[in-house]
Amino acid sequence: MAEKIPHQFDHFLSEAGSVLGPKGLTSNYEDMEPWLTDWRGRYSGSALAMASPASTAQVAALVRICTRHGVAIVPQGGNSGMSGGATPDEGGKSIILSLRRMNAIRALNEEERSVTCDAGVILQTLHEAAETKRLRFPLTLGGKGSATIGGLISTNAGGTQVLRHGTMRAQVAGLEAVLPDGQIFNSLTPLKKDNRGFDLKQLLIGSEGTLGIVTGATLRLLPEIGGRAVMWAGLSSILDARKLLLHFQDQANEQLEGFEVIPQHSLQAVLNHQPEQKAPLAEMHPWNALIELAAPKDKPDALPDLAETILGSALELGLIEDATIAASETQAEQMWHLRDSISSAERAIGPAMQHDISVPVDKMADFVAAALPAVQERFAETKAVAFGHLGDGNVHFHVIAPPNAVPGQWEKAEGKKISSFVHDLVTEWGGSISAEHGIGQMKLAELERLGDPVSISLMQTIKNALDPQCLFNPGKLVPLARSGTNP
Amino acid sequence: MAEKIPHQFDHFLSEAGSVLGPKGLTSNYEDMEPWLTDWRGRYSGSALAMASPASTAQVAALVRICTRHGVAIVPQGGNSGMSGGATPDEGGKSIILSLRRMNAIRALNEEERSVTCDAGVILQTLHEAAETKRLRFPLTLGGKGSATIGGLISTNAGGTQVLRHGTMRAQVAGLEAVLPDGQIFNSLTPLKKDNRGFDLKQLLIGSEGTLGIVTGATLRLLPEIGGRAVMWAGLSSILDARKLLLHFQDQANEQLEGFEVIPQHSLQAVLNHQPEQKAPLAEMHPWNALIELAAPKDKPDALPDLAETILGSALELGLIEDATIAASETQAEQMWHLRDSISSAERAIGPAMQHDISVPVDKMADFVAAALPAVQERFAETKAVAFGHLGDGNVHFHVIAPPNAVPGQWEKAEGKKISSFVHDLVTEWGGSISAEHGIGQMKLAELERLGDPVSISLMQTIKNALDPQCLFNPGKLVPLARSGTNP
Repeated sequence: MAEKIPHQFDHFLSEAGSVLGPKGLTSNYEDMEPWLTDWRGRYSGSALAMASPASTAQVAALVRICTRHGVAIVPQGGNSGMSGGATPDEGGKSIILSLRRMNAIRALNEEERSVTCDAGVILQTLHEAAETKRLRFPLTLGGKGSATIGGLISTNAGGTQVLRHGTMRAQVAGLEAVLPDGQIFNSLTPLKKDNRGFDLKQLLIGSEGTLGIVTGATLRLLPEIGGRAVMWAGLSSILDARKLLLHFQDQANEQLEGFEVIPQHSLQAVLNHQPEQKAPLAEMHPWNALIELAAPKDKPDALPDLAETILGSALELGLIEDATIAASETQAEQMWHLRDSISSAERAIGPAMQHDISVPVDKMADFVAAALPAVQERFAETKAVAFGHLGDGNVHFHVIAPPNAVPGQWEKAEGKKISSFVHDLVTEWGGSISAEHGIGQMKLAELERLGDPVSISLMQTIKNALDPQCLFNPGKLVPLARSGTNP
Repeated sequence: MAEKIPHQFDHFLSEAGSVLGPKGLTSNYEDMEPWLTDWRGRYSGSALAMASPASTAQVAALVRICTRHGVAIVPQGGNSGMSGGATPDEGGKSIILSLRRMNAIRALNEEERSVTCDAGVILQTLHEAAETKRLRFPLTLGGKGSATIGGLISTNAGGTQVLRHGTMRAQVAGLEAVLPDGQIFNSLTPLKKDNRGFDLKQLLIGSEGTLGIVTGATLRLLPEIGGRAVMWAGLSSILDARKLLLHFQDQANEQLEGFEVIPQHSLQAVLNHQPEQKAPLAEMHPWNALIELAAPKDKPDALPDLAETILGSALELGLIEDATIAASETQAEQMWHLRDSISSAERAIGPAMQHDISVPVDKMADFVAAALPAVQERFAETKAVAFGHLGDGNVHFHVIAPPNAVPGQWEKAEGKKISSFVHDLVTEWGGSISAEHGIGQMKLAELERLGDPVSISLMQTIKNALDPQCLFNPGKLVPLARSGTNP
């Protein structure tokens, strides 16, 4: 489809090509095609070209060329985002800027426990690099085999270790990014304390490429752990799960690394979909909790006792119905694999509207208890399920279509109504319509509808000031032109 | 001096007075006088009036009146800043906006371990409020009896627990602030995960009131500790202190709460100045380290053994010459009191140029070892001392005047040259000219001279966009008008 490129872009493409070289730029549709659609196949677009710069300097040069020609840029890492934030629109006049070629680990400082790397380094690669030095990078998520550091930073990714270690923002010690004027912002020097003005890197973290293109980062590492205890508990209610969480926080303190909740429906869905997986407990329970404790590297021995003691007292207190502790790393991995299989298993059942929501942590159990029946009552024959990071006040809230629903048609007819209903509920409870997946293009209209007007106006002001041509990932995250014209 | 107020401000004052009431506004010089000079007496200014609003709504109303009349606002908390950031200029056409009347602890959520409070709450009050619930707020510093939460946030304060718990930024879960357009930004809802756009509160933290006036915050609390072990070690060199720090980080892991270094000169200064204080060790050593370990609340018993083991192996490794562990809380307090007395003791010796600097943590010992003799060689008969937060890569670097120097004259004649020399060195080492004290008015010219041009230009763009009239703390932190005219 390269022949469709309008002639006015010939000059742009030749300038960009001369900076990026043949490996760094393509307008060939076959090359671009896998990157024009998000991994879940929900958003598709087209692009003038796909740039794959090899260095920060090339990114900066490209941005200056784009600015001169008014060409918009859609930055892209592993293309594994959940909100269409890395997919171009259908206009075909923007470029994809892939960071995947920039995949060097620039420096790993064992003594300081930090690593400086390119934006295109894949999360799993980073994990492995840290492990070779007996260190660890304490953020992980399902897409670790494709998600890049730049994408994780630009979306302030979460995952299953936020409870203890915070989101991606908490791991970033320094940042390198190219700004809309083509200048390179560099705060990679890992100063632990630096009060020389606004902490500009914080503005770039989570801004989904709308203010700058992350090209590199310095990340904090931790000592490896001395071992972990992974447990599975069966519970009668989500309210008990909340009590169990508090019990663990009180008894295990900072050794509590993860606390996930899984309803019976989700566990059953995994077992149906992947018969090779096994339920950890003999019987099914209305709710399950997957809990991980980690021992400091010098104190691995106390962990099994601690896990048993806490589960024992939880049983005595009537917080849980049954529980088991993984007897080996293999069993521990199996428990986590159950958890990580929920999304695909639920998808196999049929169409569903998925929501990534948070409310204040202490309200999440009550919210789930109230919201599940409310949704099912409002939308007949749907099944609402919530699972995930109870300890962060963040669940994935899926509304599964009635059994007879026609995939595609049902989402079109009902999807928007259902999501509005869920988001309204979340907003009433003082929560967020995007806990960890970002806004992208998927939730832009909802952010406009439900977001705090003061925050949105402040975002617009900053966006307009930094990117007056609106060339950095337009149509994502920041409600702009539309905000003035909508009622 | 109220009669000196130009008539054009009559209308402004009457409007402000009608919003704030008699308790909320004064133009009386005697009332304002203590707040027109910073606590160290280095900066003085004058003001049209001092406003003391009682609520966030009053702050917002006042800002709108100021915007209409073009009156600049200098926000002020405890007036205990180190860089003149809360002192108005001499023009007398701005107002001081004191947050001290807003001093309510709005809510303390024990279960969620968080507290929401007004900006004017004093740090020590917050400590005590947390303690009554067996929780703690893990940031402290010398000025805790006067420093306010709003000031600590606006300057991203540090202190002696940053090593383990981070600066003020890491404690802030939510923020409330009044923006230059008079709107109230509110992110007080303590959502642990929220990816609905730019993290705007991060922009306000550390911005010294130039982008918004912090009126309230939600802060994270931690469980109380199970006990602490405070140690004093004598060392032969700063390079050994670095090795000792790594030894403690490796052996004590997250139980290491503080690691401060004190040169012999500073310890001697304290002993001379305050004869009631006693040296912890029998002999003097070129360097001293003050180390604190904290035990989780459920494991206090292992701590004394751990402390002894680590110090024992440090002695065997030749890292320290001698050491002692505080045998009681009283002794522990005495050790910290020695550390906290350094600034005033050094001041009593005579004039000194003080610098608050950081370099990458792994370079700080080498920096100190190189910079102290370099300064003394360049400025004959001066004495350079460095003490403080080695574990954060941050020391207070004082250059003490020659014995015969005349206070006042010496600073005027030599001060700027000395500070430029120190700041040049720090910059060569990839460090910061302000680690924890901010820029204020004191370091504005140095930031302009040595700061990263890209960062400064980005700060200017944001400042101009949010505060186009430049009414929020003008002349502080952000190099503005002057940046265009200077060579």
